[in-house]
Amino acid sequence: MMDTRTAYEALIKEYKAVSTLGSIEGLLHWDLQTMMPRKGAVIRADQMAIISGLAHQKLTSDKVRDLLGTLNTAENTLSDEERANLREIDRDFTRATKLPQELVEELTRQRSKCHNVWEAAREAGDFSKFAPDLEKLVDLTKQQAECLGYEDTPLDALIDEYEPGATAASLTTMFNEAKKTTIPLLNKILGSAVKANFDFQKQTFPQPKQKAFGEEITTVIGFDKLGSRLDSAVHPFCSGGRGDIRITARYNEHAPQQAIFGIIHETGHGLYEQGVREDTLGTPLSQPLSYGLHESQSRMWENIIGRSLPFWKLSYPILTKYFGAELKGVSVEDWVLAINHVEQSFVRVEADELTYDLHIILRFEIERELFAGTISVADLPTVWNKKFEDYLGLTPPNNGKEGVMQDIHWAMGSFGYFPSYSVGNIAAAQFWAKMKEDMPKLEQQIETGDFKDILNWLIVNVHEQGRRYSRDDLMKRATGTPLDVKHYANYLTEKFTKLYRV
Amino acid sequence: MMDTRTAYEALIKEYKAVSTLGSIEGLLHWDLQTMMPRKGAVIRADQMAIISGLAHQKLTSDKVRDLLGTLNTAENTLSDEERANLREIDRDFTRATKLPQELVEELTRQRSKCHNVWEAAREAGDFSKFAPDLEKLVDLTKQQAECLGYEDTPLDALIDEYEPGATAASLTTMFNEAKKTTIPLLNKILGSAVKANFDFQKQTFPQPKQKAFGEEITTVIGFDKLGSRLDSAVHPFCSGGRGDIRITARYNEHAPQQAIFGIIHETGHGLYEQGVREDTLGTPLSQPLSYGLHESQSRMWENIIGRSLPFWKLSYPILTKYFGAELKGVSVEDWVLAINHVEQSFVRVEADELTYDLHIILRFEIERELFAGTISVADLPTVWNKKFEDYLGLTPPNNGKEGVMQDIHWAMGSFGYFPSYSVGNIAAAQFWAKMKEDMPKLEQQIETGDFKDILNWLIVNVHEQGRRYSRDDLMKRATGTPLDVKHYANYLTEKFTKLYRV
Repeated sequence: MMDTRTAYEALIKEYKAVSTLGSIEGLLHWDLQTMMPRKGAVIRADQMAIISGLAHQKLTSDKVRDLLGTLNTAENTLSDEERANLREIDRDFTRATKLPQELVEELTRQRSKCHNVWEAAREAGDFSKFAPDLEKLVDLTKQQAECLGYEDTPLDALIDEYEPGATAASLTTMFNEAKKTTIPLLNKILGSAVKANFDFQKQTFPQPKQKAFGEEITTVIGFDKLGSRLDSAVHPFCSGGRGDIRITARYNEHAPQQAIFGIIHETGHGLYEQGVREDTLGTPLSQPLSYGLHESQSRMWENIIGRSLPFWKLSYPILTKYFGAELKGVSVEDWVLAINHVEQSFVRVEADELTYDLHIILRFEIERELFAGTISVADLPTVWNKKFEDYLGLTPPNNGKEGVMQDIHWAMGSFGYFPSYSVGNIAAAQFWAKMKEDMPKLEQQIETGDFKDILNWLIVNVHEQGRRYSRDDLMKRATGTPLDVKHYANYLTEKFTKLYRV
Repeated sequence: MMDTRTAYEALIKEYKAVSTLGSIEGLLHWDLQTMMPRKGAVIRADQMAIISGLAHQKLTSDKVRDLLGTLNTAENTLSDEERANLREIDRDFTRATKLPQELVEELTRQRSKCHNVWEAAREAGDFSKFAPDLEKLVDLTKQQAECLGYEDTPLDALIDEYEPGATAASLTTMFNEAKKTTIPLLNKILGSAVKANFDFQKQTFPQPKQKAFGEEITTVIGFDKLGSRLDSAVHPFCSGGRGDIRITARYNEHAPQQAIFGIIHETGHGLYEQGVREDTLGTPLSQPLSYGLHESQSRMWENIIGRSLPFWKLSYPILTKYFGAELKGVSVEDWVLAINHVEQSFVRVEADELTYDLHIILRFEIERELFAGTISVADLPTVWNKKFEDYLGLTPPNNGKEGVMQDIHWAMGSFGYFPSYSVGNIAAAQFWAKMKEDMPKLEQQIETGDFKDILNWLIVNVHEQGRRYSRDDLMKRATGTPLDVKHYANYLTEKFTKLYRV
């Protein structure tokens, strides 16, 4: 029988190959969204299929199964870190082997079909065109959940993919708390006399200068230009890993704040990747614990730091170096009010920091009902609109781009994904509260462009930990307590009551 | 036993997967040269190693071996095209299985080492620093040749990789003929009173406008923008395949002709890929017959068409749309003389159309001697300089960038590759001679921007044939005779005696 050391090293070698294939798939995806000529779509589909097939094959091979078998009976001879790697590789293997091949293929086909149908139905605002295929996809996804297993409700099995350890029940509790802060705060702000001025949007802010500012400001923060790049994409994202991180942005020549915060957001994701330990690359210890934890980093840099007055005391002089004429007469306080403008709106991706979670919560609640079987696909438009009125005080004008079909997630079968966005906000605020304790001069440091303590705190407490701990263990080690929505409620209340004098 | 049809389809499926992996490797390479941030080198090396390993594994699998075994005994039931695919897949399989794994690994290591050593030695112009590692690489390459097998000389086994069917002996005959035309013609031109005027190089030609002209002119030729893109790279190349062809260029802001002809050259390669039959994609029928045949397309577009007066009667008004001020006072005839300027020079990649082959021939002759054992690595600088004086009338000032170490090929172990460049020139001229017979109004068509007959001729006779025929069969079908250097000799003589009035 193979000794433990040899087996562990063999397992890591196999897993690293899976990760390398994953990184290639990531590059194919990046290229598809940024560089690929239109007619490359056919060969690209083949390329992506072969790579994901090979990665799946490698992860679920008999070799990996045997190595896991050997190591799972001998894990007491492994170090803590090695045990964590073993546990997480086992988790990946188990999830990947739970689904029968036919179901995987049927899901892939139905997702692709649904995505195509969705595009047309969304354009036409006609939910009835989308409903039959979505219903079939929901059914298949329920089967997927059955295969994966859950304790309480099928949605738990799906949430577990994005947010290991979270459940529909625990999210419900947290989101109900969040709503108690967000909805009253929103109503107060809507009644405030403090109003942002958007006259600067009459000016033109050329894209190349927006990009140059974005590159300058992210370098100031500490994002390494030699290990990253910034391109344009219709739907911005961050991909790649340490050494080769690729972020993207979409530019609006009249509203530069859109690309600026998009870039800072993606840089937050990028900094997470940049912060992983080099010696753990390709293993679970270099991988994000959850989508929510990754999002906590992008949201922290975009919202908590990026939309703060101290940050703009530092950055506004840099911005006006590029756009002095266009921002003439706009004070840094005017600018900060504009970038923190709160309003009821229909579209999630355009929502402000405060209302964003309401968009998420209503989606999560709908998913919860849908997978519990208490509503059906046919009910979605009605339920959506009702919740929209309750939480955001608005009646969606259509079922398409400003209504129930606005997001790609359901069309792609990514149920259980939405909560991670709000988990990210909640975790970020909790980190931030602890960081302010640990670094009493935090705001002055930001104002003077000294980000190294902040970055170091995040690296040590989050980035370098990868998947070593459970989410609550990681939160406890970093902040003293498990994930707790109160920090986020405090943060929002303090920030917005001050800004809007309410 | 599996029936022939099933076996054939299974073989094609396996081979297409190998091709798809190859296309991914191509993209990784393109990205490395154009997009990748500097620190991405480490993970990129892993990505490329895993993909080429998987491709090799797939090509040399027992499954492929068994399918080839089944089909090779039943090929009479296959169509002509299917038999050609079978023959070529068998060729690839055989070549790939002939080398023992240890030799492949040792070659990879030594190539990589040699490449690093070469960079420094080339910079310092110190051949003695390069010689020991090059010697080791030559020895390993000789072992490679022994494994691959040959009839006459080890170099034949290497040439066969790039130019199937060609041998050192047949190339020697052809190149000796070529020299008989080139060297006297060069000497005549050097004595001519006709001299190009390069005053326009005092102007500045901004890169974005050069690129825009490049994109416009290649679209005029018939290169499909929806299936291609143009980027910058230090060492320009063409990669990708039909639907997603990527060409690159290097720009000199004072000598726009460098990028213009670089772009037209790479477009020639791209048009080859664009011209393959869609239903053969991923099979040998969609692959180039040889490096020389591919080069025949790039050279035809760059030199035969691209540097001709009819082409510039069409294109010069387009060029002056971009650079009217910079080219003020330069007539189309002045321009054509400048872009056909002939001179003795040290560096292959900067050589003009006429002297280029002399650079190639001397390299080939050195390779021939080296692999026959009649000279050793230590002799290279002396032999190089002697031949340079004989053929080009110049004594290289150093052994580095202007001497024996200027090219990357030997440092990477690509022995036997150089001849393909000249084979390309020779084949292009032979196609051209036939095209002029088939299309009596060829020059007028070029002058009026009507390239569809030319492109169609090349598609039907070259691009669509892929690896269906041997080189000489393809030449015979297209032009009536096997490859024959006389067409090239005629073309050069006619063109340059007219241009230089000699």
